[in-house]
Amino acid sequence: MMRRILLTIEYKGTRYCGWQSQKNGPSVQEELAKALEKVCGHRVKLIGSGRTDEGVHALAQAAHFDTDCSIPDDKFPFAVNPFLPEDIRVTSGKQVPEGFHARYGAKRKTYVYKLYTSKIDSPIRRELFAHIPYELDVERMRQGAAHLVGEHDFSAFMAAGSSVKGTVRRIYYIDITKDGDRIEIEVCGNGFLRHMVRIITGTLIDVGRGRIGPNEVAKILESRDRARAGFTAPSCGLYLKEVQY
Amino acid sequence: MMRRILLTIEYKGTRYCGWQSQKNGPSVQEELAKALEKVCGHRVKLIGSGRTDEGVHALAQAAHFDTDCSIPDDKFPFAVNPFLPEDIRVTSGKQVPEGFHARYGAKRKTYVYKLYTSKIDSPIRRELFAHIPYELDVERMRQGAAHLVGEHDFSAFMAAGSSVKGTVRRIYYIDITKDGDRIEIEVCGNGFLRHMVRIITGTLIDVGRGRIGPNEVAKILESRDRARAGFTAPSCGLYLKEVQY
Repeated sequence: MMRRILLTIEYKGTRYCGWQSQKNGPSVQEELAKALEKVCGHRVKLIGSGRTDEGVHALAQAAHFDTDCSIPDDKFPFAVNPFLPEDIRVTSGKQVPEGFHARYGAKRKTYVYKLYTSKIDSPIRRELFAHIPYELDVERMRQGAAHLVGEHDFSAFMAAGSSVKGTVRRIYYIDITKDGDRIEIEVCGNGFLRHMVRIITGTLIDVGRGRIGPNEVAKILESRDRARAGFTAPSCGLYLKEVQY
Repeated sequence: MMRRILLTIEYKGTRYCGWQSQKNGPSVQEELAKALEKVCGHRVKLIGSGRTDEGVHALAQAAHFDTDCSIPDDKFPFAVNPFLPEDIRVTSGKQVPEGFHARYGAKRKTYVYKLYTSKIDSPIRRELFAHIPYELDVERMRQGAAHLVGEHDFSAFMAAGSSVKGTVRRIYYIDITKDGDRIEIEVCGNGFLRHMVRIITGTLIDVGRGRIGPNEVAKILESRDRARAGFTAPSCGLYLKEVQY
């Protein structure tokens, strides 16, 4: 009997060209599809909740596929993981209704951006955190972030050259926490444009170091001009944390 | 004028055969000696506080060398780091007296062992934490660890086949902390035998999962028999945290 299975996947993105299968390097999607083919006995069409860029990590990416194999839905992690590289793991599996769609059905996505501020970069934190070599004022960053919460046209926070129909998205919250020299920026929204979290982060870093005023963030948003926002923060600090359906 | 310089070094040990220069792969010591040669203009003899094994990390390894170059002692990190691979960083430099010795002068060393307990291993934590696929009772581990504190003959907790003169060491404290599924075991002592922290950790893991009684640790210690202690916990979870002089 054909079933639709939803998997949750954790991966370290460092080695990959991203989630999506591409010609320029190994992708998480392709590695997972190959492993699923081995355990299901047939090629699967794997639909992720969305792309993640080169070097971006996932704590819980979501993807669905259809299969008539006999593996119980909750046993997929244990069946598939032995066939995956060590930097990809399926962490859960469950059956979902036929009409479920991992991409179109996603209601909310949460990303977290992890960075640390220190004069010297840390070998241990490399690949998993962005290194920012100056102090950041977290209170200023929170003031700046507040302007982004709500439904807005986020054109100014989209990678230049992107072509999408709509550029309006809703951000439910941006939480910024600090623990010693570590700062985490958690952003939850109904969808994200290309590089949106990384450009938001780069802009908030500029706010935190005093190069952009907190209230200027509202003007950048209104301008819809990518050139006015901050830099695109490096991919190594970004994690897809949760997809809600 | 000849000066003796003490450096503090952070490294991710994954790619290295260890601190010590060896023929079977790249070592942290050799990478650092090569970088120092470039900035000092002469070959240096670099003396570390002690070896770390293949795959073991350091938050603060210590090493000294002599130089007559003109770089101010506290500027060594900024002078040397551009010549080091990204997984090694000098984090501080200071001048020390002529008689100072990074190895013989070390009074206390602190190691921390980082592990997490979960059914499925985590791609993100790989290389930086050990994965233990079962629950551990931290209170039992603390009871077991208490027997190791003090001055003892640690032969049972030394890699088989090691040949050292003395096997008596003093452990000042073993602190075990838990945060969600993460456990850290911090061990501070006046010196450590080969694999000692990893065998202590492996034994405490066996205590935590119920295979060894907490009080049995005292008997293992007394036996001086390596075969009675637990397994050697994997190197990826171990960090040299501090060397005190």
